[in-house]
Amino acid sequence: VRFASVSLGYISQAAAKIDVDFDYDGPLMKTEVPGPRSRELMKQLNGIQNAEAVHFFCNYEESRGNYLVDVDGNRMLDLYSQISSIPIGYSHPSLIKLLQQPQNLSTFINRPALGILPPENFAERLKESLLSVAPKGLPQVITMSCGSCSNENAFKAIFMWYRNKERGHNNVTKEELESCMINQPPGCPDYAMLSFMGGFHGRTLGCLATTHSKAIHKLDIPSLDWPIAPFPRLKYPLEDFVKENQQEEARCLEEVEDLIVKYRKKKKIVAGIIVEPIQSEGGDNHASDDFFRKLRDIARKHGCAFLVDEVQTGGGCTGKFWAHEHWGLDDPADVVTFSKKMMTGGFFHKEEFRPNAPYRIFNTWLGDPSKNLMLAEVIKVIKREDLLNNATHAGKALLTGLLDLQARYPHLISRVRGRGTFCSFDTPNDATRNKLITIARNKGVVLGGCGDRSIRFRPTLIFKDHHAHLFLNIFSDILANFK
Amino acid sequence: VRFASVSLGYISQAAAKIDVDFDYDGPLMKTEVPGPRSRELMKQLNGIQNAEAVHFFCNYEESRGNYLVDVDGNRMLDLYSQISSIPIGYSHPSLIKLLQQPQNLSTFINRPALGILPPENFAERLKESLLSVAPKGLPQVITMSCGSCSNENAFKAIFMWYRNKERGHNNVTKEELESCMINQPPGCPDYAMLSFMGGFHGRTLGCLATTHSKAIHKLDIPSLDWPIAPFPRLKYPLEDFVKENQQEEARCLEEVEDLIVKYRKKKKIVAGIIVEPIQSEGGDNHASDDFFRKLRDIARKHGCAFLVDEVQTGGGCTGKFWAHEHWGLDDPADVVTFSKKMMTGGFFHKEEFRPNAPYRIFNTWLGDPSKNLMLAEVIKVIKREDLLNNATHAGKALLTGLLDLQARYPHLISRVRGRGTFCSFDTPNDATRNKLITIARNKGVVLGGCGDRSIRFRPTLIFKDHHAHLFLNIFSDILANFK
Repeated sequence: VRFASVSLGYISQAAAKIDVDFDYDGPLMKTEVPGPRSRELMKQLNGIQNAEAVHFFCNYEESRGNYLVDVDGNRMLDLYSQISSIPIGYSHPSLIKLLQQPQNLSTFINRPALGILPPENFAERLKESLLSVAPKGLPQVITMSCGSCSNENAFKAIFMWYRNKERGHNNVTKEELESCMINQPPGCPDYAMLSFMGGFHGRTLGCLATTHSKAIHKLDIPSLDWPIAPFPRLKYPLEDFVKENQQEEARCLEEVEDLIVKYRKKKKIVAGIIVEPIQSEGGDNHASDDFFRKLRDIARKHGCAFLVDEVQTGGGCTGKFWAHEHWGLDDPADVVTFSKKMMTGGFFHKEEFRPNAPYRIFNTWLGDPSKNLMLAEVIKVIKREDLLNNATHAGKALLTGLLDLQARYPHLISRVRGRGTFCSFDTPNDATRNKLITIARNKGVVLGGCGDRSIRFRPTLIFKDHHAHLFLNIFSDILANFK
Repeated sequence: VRFASVSLGYISQAAAKIDVDFDYDGPLMKTEVPGPRSRELMKQLNGIQNAEAVHFFCNYEESRGNYLVDVDGNRMLDLYSQISSIPIGYSHPSLIKLLQQPQNLSTFINRPALGILPPENFAERLKESLLSVAPKGLPQVITMSCGSCSNENAFKAIFMWYRNKERGHNNVTKEELESCMINQPPGCPDYAMLSFMGGFHGRTLGCLATTHSKAIHKLDIPSLDWPIAPFPRLKYPLEDFVKENQQEEARCLEEVEDLIVKYRKKKKIVAGIIVEPIQSEGGDNHASDDFFRKLRDIARKHGCAFLVDEVQTGGGCTGKFWAHEHWGLDDPADVVTFSKKMMTGGFFHKEEFRPNAPYRIFNTWLGDPSKNLMLAEVIKVIKREDLLNNATHAGKALLTGLLDLQARYPHLISRVRGRGTFCSFDTPNDATRNKLITIARNKGVVLGGCGDRSIRFRPTLIFKDHHAHLFLNIFSDILANFK
């Protein structure tokens, strides 16, 4: 059955502008999701690995723009975009063209060890892609293969920077060189990264010591005694709780300073602070721009590096290329990590965080030039199609609609919040949230959960006002009929 | 100047069999390496990131088979293959064809979150690629993006397995769920991986705690108090030191057992042992098959998982698809990690190491289907062209020639060793080693170093006898003229 456009007032003028060659014009549902073919494939995959997290199997050849098509022929408006990792939609014509150019073939099949034998255009490609959108004041960039590796290596750059400061740039001692080989200080100093409760920074052992979103990520894995500060829990609507929220943020900042001092007293040095501009996996927890400016000041005051993890928030979905650009920092962040929508992992950093010798930040691949090639094209599309302003605009349409739904269904929707299309709301509990996600999927909309009861919106950058209205129409019906 | 074929007796009949459409027929040197264009590009890249490790810049479009072409038009026989990561040579016609097929485009531009929304052919592709070469007894596989992530996640699977054993598969306690959120036991238990001095397992914080090859990798990075055993230091030629080497291996194995007991006494539980079949980065250190069989027995005796890191040794270069298949283990390894030549990272494991819930071993990408697609083709080529037997054969030609050179230049070459084409030798010291590598490069041969004075051979799987002879001719001349 072709999805029937439904009820209410959200259908906009903009719906007429759909590029039919690329995006589809709406969901089209044929079976329940997961459908019979998906269920068959799940069983098959489950013989090879635990496949219980699989939602359904996809037909990526048929997926286009904002629409994800599954193996049972269902076409869904995708507001989750592969955990926020598809920048300009599925099967974008510009990327197809790029792949069809014979001169690009080599980049895909001859993957080099970038740190020792880079291709001729490596620096040029970094300039036209990553460096063309570098956060102000962070002119250096190192690429990595994924988000976890980006944070792990950012930690390392910070530890090296701190130790260099501490030893006054003197020569390394024999004792340091020997002790580091057996994991002991002074060669392996007792440094720490300070992180926030509710934060998510990846799942490798170093990252995981700074991740505190869900127990399932951390259970049974040995960790490090690193300080963990509370992250503000803001009350909504913000305008009704100005004073309470200010107090809450002040409390958290005070705790950050206390922890730095407390850990130093026990000879555990906080070399850096890591924070997400919006805690995503942990439940889309926001704090004010003022909170982050003050946090940046605390980092400087105590000589700690300030690391902003933009793995999920980066790439334009908040209406600026980097979410932390909303803060208006006087002194830039020291290190900014990225991955997901950037197609390659990596991190930007200030000059002073540059490794002082070769092979200190290194691995075999150091990213992948084929991802840099695609990212360069993606950034061209973002600029050409003004997709940052689009995220602001479409995000406003989405947020306005969500606030309206919240007013109408306060027992189901609360704490509506967002920046650009990076929006979310709370439901009463885990069970209701999961039920809403399942119903929405069967009505042709893919949503994602986060935290213990939130639904998060992570559409692509080509998500337009009319997609927001389409979603709001469908979701309004769902809420009206929700039992 | 066209490289002039030189002297001596190494030119073989096989040299006639060159596939001119694909491989080149010899080195061709036009400038010193790095040449002027490479030096210019180094300066440019060094403005963006520390580029001091760069050897030279490459023209991958012109690179073919065993030959790497640089941006100054120099064509070199590549015996290092991007730190052992190019399986079937540059620009292989089968991979070019694969990229040109329109039905494969989508796989390259629509990268999914594999753990939740896999493509239709995901399981099938795993079966025709990774599972078709799975080590015996390890039917489960999980893909990752790089070698470090593979080891990190293998550690996690081992820690979960150990903890499950320990708690008798009872339900997780509230205390565990709460304490893990703040990095504390019992939720984050004090478990350890035992590793070997000289080993290399990656550079993220967990991996780095098991890496002990060079100080530059570890200096300034906080670490974990995990046990480190000595790795045998064998004397060569092996046949002259049978008893000494047996004693050396027995000493190391005894130390492994002592460490497990000693760490348990201080409440630090060794959940697993990680080892490379040949310590690569650490200097191409070999041990006997008997050593590894006994190590496997020790792991079982103490209830530790046995993790074999085949990131560098795997993929066929030792003449078997996995180097540890040479050992003839009765009881298979528990976990085997891979990356590099496999194009995707990941690990195989026994059924009992399967995560008992979704999202426990998870990240956004979990590898990359475009790499699985290429790997499936690479494995077809390996089977079709019988490249494992080729590695044995070409490796024998290389090793025989190196032993001959060692006999003639014992002051320059010692401890010649190898399995398949995974060969190496020692030089008197670091300076001589680096000088030999530089001279060889300017004569059209790319070699790699490892350890403090070794040269390692890591050619592609299409390295044939005639390439070995070509190299031996060139290197024989270099040694004859070395001052």
